[in-house]
Amino acid sequence: MAQEDVFKKIVSHCKEYGYVFPSSDIYDGLGAVYDYGQMGVELKNNIKKYWWDSMVLLHENIVGIDSAIFMHPTIWKASGHVDAFNDPLIDNKDSKKRYRADVLIEDQLAKYDEKINKEVEKARKKFGESFDEAQYRSTNPRVLGHQEKRDALHTRFAKALNDNNLDELRQIIVDEEIVCPISGTKNWTEVRQFNLMFSTEMGSTSDGAMKVYLRPETAQGIFVNYLNVQKTGRMKIPFGIAQIGKAFRNEIVARQFIFRMREFEQMEMQFFVRPGEELNWFKLWKEQRLKWHKGLGFGDAKYRFHDHDKLAHYANAATDIEFEMPFGFKEVEGIHSRTNFDLSQHEKYSGKNIKYFDPELNESYTPYVIETSIGVDRMFLSVMCASYCEETLEGGETRVVLKLPAALAPIKLAVMPLVKKDGLPEKAREIINDLKFHFNCQYDEKDSIGKRYRRQDAIGTPYCVTVDHQTLEDNCVTIRHRDTMAQERVAISELNNIIADKVSITTLLKTLI
Amino acid sequence: MAQEDVFKKIVSHCKEYGYVFPSSDIYDGLGAVYDYGQMGVELKNNIKKYWWDSMVLLHENIVGIDSAIFMHPTIWKASGHVDAFNDPLIDNKDSKKRYRADVLIEDQLAKYDEKINKEVEKARKKFGESFDEAQYRSTNPRVLGHQEKRDALHTRFAKALNDNNLDELRQIIVDEEIVCPISGTKNWTEVRQFNLMFSTEMGSTSDGAMKVYLRPETAQGIFVNYLNVQKTGRMKIPFGIAQIGKAFRNEIVARQFIFRMREFEQMEMQFFVRPGEELNWFKLWKEQRLKWHKGLGFGDAKYRFHDHDKLAHYANAATDIEFEMPFGFKEVEGIHSRTNFDLSQHEKYSGKNIKYFDPELNESYTPYVIETSIGVDRMFLSVMCASYCEETLEGGETRVVLKLPAALAPIKLAVMPLVKKDGLPEKAREIINDLKFHFNCQYDEKDSIGKRYRRQDAIGTPYCVTVDHQTLEDNCVTIRHRDTMAQERVAISELNNIIADKVSITTLLKTLI
Repeated sequence: MAQEDVFKKIVSHCKEYGYVFPSSDIYDGLGAVYDYGQMGVELKNNIKKYWWDSMVLLHENIVGIDSAIFMHPTIWKASGHVDAFNDPLIDNKDSKKRYRADVLIEDQLAKYDEKINKEVEKARKKFGESFDEAQYRSTNPRVLGHQEKRDALHTRFAKALNDNNLDELRQIIVDEEIVCPISGTKNWTEVRQFNLMFSTEMGSTSDGAMKVYLRPETAQGIFVNYLNVQKTGRMKIPFGIAQIGKAFRNEIVARQFIFRMREFEQMEMQFFVRPGEELNWFKLWKEQRLKWHKGLGFGDAKYRFHDHDKLAHYANAATDIEFEMPFGFKEVEGIHSRTNFDLSQHEKYSGKNIKYFDPELNESYTPYVIETSIGVDRMFLSVMCASYCEETLEGGETRVVLKLPAALAPIKLAVMPLVKKDGLPEKAREIINDLKFHFNCQYDEKDSIGKRYRRQDAIGTPYCVTVDHQTLEDNCVTIRHRDTMAQERVAISELNNIIADKVSITTLLKTLI
Repeated sequence: MAQEDVFKKIVSHCKEYGYVFPSSDIYDGLGAVYDYGQMGVELKNNIKKYWWDSMVLLHENIVGIDSAIFMHPTIWKASGHVDAFNDPLIDNKDSKKRYRADVLIEDQLAKYDEKINKEVEKARKKFGESFDEAQYRSTNPRVLGHQEKRDALHTRFAKALNDNNLDELRQIIVDEEIVCPISGTKNWTEVRQFNLMFSTEMGSTSDGAMKVYLRPETAQGIFVNYLNVQKTGRMKIPFGIAQIGKAFRNEIVARQFIFRMREFEQMEMQFFVRPGEELNWFKLWKEQRLKWHKGLGFGDAKYRFHDHDKLAHYANAATDIEFEMPFGFKEVEGIHSRTNFDLSQHEKYSGKNIKYFDPELNESYTPYVIETSIGVDRMFLSVMCASYCEETLEGGETRVVLKLPAALAPIKLAVMPLVKKDGLPEKAREIINDLKFHFNCQYDEKDSIGKRYRRQDAIGTPYCVTVDHQTLEDNCVTIRHRDTMAQERVAISELNNIIADKVSITTLLKTLI
């Protein structure tokens, strides 16, 4: 099955089984905003708990905070977001549609690649097994012609971006004769910068309200609080502050389901270190974070680092942890050595001394910062993609099963009476009433046992137990394992022992030490 | 100590010990917005977990969701918020200050009460023990004069509010000769309605962006998703949907620390029932919710119901659970029988059929809804207020102790080496490394043991253990209990057994059954 089709199936599976709904669905949705359903919210909470506990419970020197979405507007001036958190936009005058100029040019680059690939595939068909692709690419005049144009465009585009030259971006679009996909015309406006922050007005006085922003990242909430936390928590460098919270970006091109949303959630940890020691810590956090991802058991081949060549103005090292989605390797987490840029800017803009006094060195300095920043929604999507399986069973029947790590599964155990009578429902509920304090249980009595297994497979429930007439006599049930579909007879009194550890976040955490 | 002073102390305790910081503190704060510090975030998360688990884990027929803050703007038209979620505001032309007209009048009512109370107190002093307050109030001409004016004002004010008569509100302010507290003048503008929703612009097309609101309540996110949840989760009426999330209101008068904020968090559960059965369910949820509050063990006298006489247009019954704060009994939770108002409105505005098909009755209908709605921040404040104690100890020394329910305390156990040498720190960390997977531990080695106890008292840590030289030989430690300050010698291997159950949310949950 094509990867594109797999992704479509995952998206519709998410809706069908209560993982993710389009926001405001009955009002035909709201662009690039999604709601988490009854299964989604549990999976999301489990991901958050795995992250939070791995940071705050396991590290003596990391604590959490929860700062507000609203912050003083000067903070975004200091961080550079007011002036530089922009996308270059261009309108087509005929269709009235607006585009990101850089995305139009990236699409044009992709067209050259397509042309080259077409030539190559044509030749491959023609020459059959004797085809030497590398030689063909380096000698065929048509391929070389396309490649030359592509390279020239790429160079010109990179320079325009680097120079932040909006006129040149427009000129590239004109010169490349890029047309609007809607109107088909080349009738373009100027390119303008468009700030990605949402703004609103706070308070109301006759002198006017204050313009405030919805934070575009949670990091600044940590920076402006770092000294409060350090002092009241008596933290010593090196130490970290972790935070989970919403952030907002007014993306023009929002794509790929929950991968790029206008409202999203971040899990960020800022680690404060001595100047000069930051690159050692950067290396260590790269390793630690990759280990956290791999702890979920999806296989090491799903992950890779993408070290940044071009660094943001505030960074002296940066890497992404990329995960293999059906639409390619994509960033799910960024690890950045942010230097002392943010803290220095806040010192400058607030006029407050926010230096740290290091008792061991007996001196004050502005700490350097290593950031680990992960998108909860992207992480959620990567978990769904890695867990979604379609299997053909022995009898030829197929099943869809979400092979979620048991610790992340929304429902840990489904309890099913074989029939809806003879006291079996009561017995099933008795089991749930014992176990529900320890983990999430679901009672399921409708349809045949086979159908119920399929339903629980589809939502990723790792364990099902069936209560039958024999149960009333021997207090044993049949437990069925999601992935192997193996069944065994066990005593009800043993269920907690069998299941609790396997579905517990603690078990995941222990693999990190 | 006056209750006002107690409250001030709690506010400063919150800042000093990392519970609550003013938002954007180094930029001199942002009005009515606060950040939760390293202790606050843990307490808040524990409160949320107690609520979430009590709803979702303990009820077979309640599931959660997590809907976005951004919703389709028509939703707020349907809910009535665009047209009617207003405060009546008035400006003083000299000071340029803006006020809520209703609050100015409420303050005026309070002034009459003050006058009456002064008369009564004066008389009490004069007549001493023989003073009959009730008789004095009902006969003294000066008191009766004030009372008459107060009653007349109250009647006029209630009518103006009921009629939504803005001119009359202004006329009351003029007739009562209310002056601006800043300028001291009576130079008032007209009264105008001011909508409390924050708005922002989403997307960007050359045709203009879409005006969207930051949700002023989380409830509507449940209503517009209820049928998606019901169908994909195969829920049968009666069933509930629970949600925790941020909401935003542009309050003009934001007061009392985190009690009334512009950005706040709600825990709401909407319970869908058959029409006609709603008042029975309302009664049941009143009882259940009060039980949840009382489960924290602050004493039953701290709570009371306040049934609403005047009902919102969508409700046919409503009550508040009030908690005794240092500034009086205040609403922390509302329980409302919302009828089918919201769902009917969404049906009307969306044009979609969102009726529920009841398989038992074999008919379709719009369910009625019971709402339980609790402010996380208010709940947090009530917990802090109820837990804050100043005690005088035997030796005359005083201590400040946060008597938090152990299950809510941010740190469950502090482990302290008696001295910072001889292998005691290593032994202390060994204990933490064993226990940290189960609950939040803190390592504390600085200052004398006595000072460390005080510090842990102040943040509400229920257990401290001290590692001494003897520990290295017998693997026993001294455990000290926060509230009684009792100490006992126990084996390290017994610590988890002693502590884990007491600090677990599960233990709280079990009291609810």
